[in-house]
Amino acid sequence: MPEALVQAAFELASLGPTSANCEPLRLVLVRCPQAKERLLSCVSSGNYEKVRTAPITAIVAYDREFFELLPRLYPHSDARGWFTTDPALAEETALRNSSLQGAYLILALRAQGLDCGPMSGFDAAKVDAAFFPGGRWGTNFLLNIGYGDRDRLHPRLPRFAFDEVARWE
Amino acid sequence: MPEALVQAAFELASLGPTSANCEPLRLVLVRCPQAKERLLSCVSSGNYEKVRTAPITAIVAYDREFFELLPRLYPHSDARGWFTTDPALAEETALRNSSLQGAYLILALRAQGLDCGPMSGFDAAKVDAAFFPGGRWGTNFLLNIGYGDRDRLHPRLPRFAFDEVARWE
Repeated sequence: MPEALVQAAFELASLGPTSANCEPLRLVLVRCPQAKERLLSCVSSGNYEKVRTAPITAIVAYDREFFELLPRLYPHSDARGWFTTDPALAEETALRNSSLQGAYLILALRAQGLDCGPMSGFDAAKVDAAFFPGGRWGTNFLLNIGYGDRDRLHPRLPRFAFDEVARWE
Repeated sequence: MPEALVQAAFELASLGPTSANCEPLRLVLVRCPQAKERLLSCVSSGNYEKVRTAPITAIVAYDREFFELLPRLYPHSDARGWFTTDPALAEETALRNSSLQGAYLILALRAQGLDCGPMSGFDAAKVDAAFFPGGRWGTNFLLNIGYGDRDRLHPRLPRFAFDEVARWE
């Protein structure tokens, strides 16, 4: 698993937009056996083998205090104050925008020729305790990265048609 | 503004993964003057002109009761029960996954040659009241869609380097 491909995907994904350029995404790329064991103890039984066999499992996380970096990331306005006074807005903004960035990363990894599978089937509080003891970073989702075996894929599940979930006004 | 391009982008974005294939994204594509007026009354002053001049502004929303569709979308398991018993998990799942889908849509629109700009600078409660009186759909973010004037773009804001926000373990 070439690390350079993962870093190239990150750099491509970084170009995607976030609200006030807040970029709350943080990543831990788990590949060594000891770290993988710590992560496996937090994963649901149905996802255990997926994480165990992935060359890399990314913990797609966010910085709860992302707004402290806004004077650098969004220098033309005092956006920091929007969040220091409203912790619920800060948490929602971190979740929304790290999810956007996580989606950019999924597509960028695939654009690099890698396969990846995101997962929500794990105990986020346990991952936080195992990897982010300070409490500043929080786990959003896990992302297995590698080269998949296409012979073992399930068929694609159904998708909504446009008219079922979208309307013009 | 060809509607077919927007629908093609939606169909491309639909292929992206969501947790348990839950697909909570819902879209209202605002283009008629009356609907645009309703939306403009909910937007912050700094974003007013962006919404006013966009040929289409999409309300990127989510279905709070997305789980009612899981027997169709994820038929091999009873995933509905994961959410009916845990409203906070349902809300977080809707926000996370509609954000992923919103990011797929941003990139799909751009892949279709359109320009688009997502925005969080608006009053979500007012948009919900104006467009989703039933309370089942909630607004995630707004997305202006059209063809931008490149001469009037601001320079790209700074991005984090890989080593600043990611680590190998």
